[in-house]
Formats: sequence, C-alpha cells, structure tokens
Amino acid sequence: MKHAAGILAFGHHLRRLRRARKLTQEALADYAEISRPTVQRIEKGQAAPTLEVLLSLALVLQVSLKDLVDAPGITPKESELRAE
Amino acid sequence: MKHAAGILAFGHHLRRLRRARKLTQEALADYAEISRPTVQRIEKGQAAPTLEVLLSLALVLQVSLKDLVDAPGITPKESELRAE
Repeated sequence: MKHAAGILAFGHHLRRLRRARKLTQEALADYAEISRPTVQRIEKGQAAPTLEVLLSLALVLQVSLKDLVDAPGITPKESELRAE
Repeated sequence: MKHAAGILAFGHHLRRLRRARKLTQEALADYAEISRPTVQRIEKGQAAPTLEVLLSLALVLQVSLKDLVDAPGITPKESELRAE
C-alpha cells in the first residue's frame, strides 16, 4: 500500500476522535454503517477508507471532513514518496 | 452511493485544482499512478477515491490533504443524511 505512514496517521487520529467521544469501535461502526472489522482495520492503518466512508465517519464524529483528515503526519512529504 | 452530493462536490473541487495547475486528466492520472478513467469518474462524482488515492492526488497537486478535501458543500449535513 502506498502512503502507509499517512494512512496509519489517519487511523491513529480516528481512534483519538472516537475515544474523545466515548464511542466503542462497535458503536462507531454501527452509526457509520460499516463493519466493526473495517473500523478496526482503518484504525490500525491496514485499510484506506473511501471518501464515502470518510464522510460517514465525519458525520458520526461531528467534525468536518477537513478536521477528520487533519492528522499530524498525514500529508506525505515528497521525500517520503521518492524513498518508496 | 451514500453522500453522493459530497462526493460530487469533491470531484468538482479536484477538477478546479487540476485545471489551476494546467494538468490534463491524463497527466494527473500518470503522476498519481491511477488510471485516467478513474480520474474522470472521480471528477464526475461517480467514484469515491480511497484515502490512498487522495494522498497521491494531494502530493501531485501540491496541497495538504486537508486543503484537497476542503471543497464547498463536501461535508454532509445531518438533514441530508436523514433524507436518504
């Protein structure tokens, strides 16, 4: 998977947002209408959510899409890409 | 597809960013290592890119992920979701 570091950074950010709202993975999955294993894989950086799922997550977590993806380290540096 | 309006808003925003950089769909596709039909479908709101593709697009367009997704009308309103 390309951008593994960015995808993992997103997963960690999502986990922080979820926990700040005292939601379990199960509850987040239910509200966002995705499966719990999908939430788990996203939080571990093992799956890259689609824009459709990102929009569902933003809605459930009551943040804008912009804030949802604004995780430290999420935007790849060009140097990082060149190294792949 | 859920969030069709948000996904279309993203497509239009992507098209604006691409054109502002004087890139053809073909060039954007090449640099981002995705197919030209994929770019086309994303710009038309017919496909929801994954976070992996979003990160590639941000890199090619030289914007942060946050700015890439910051399209007017992209974040769904709760009323919109309830109406679906």
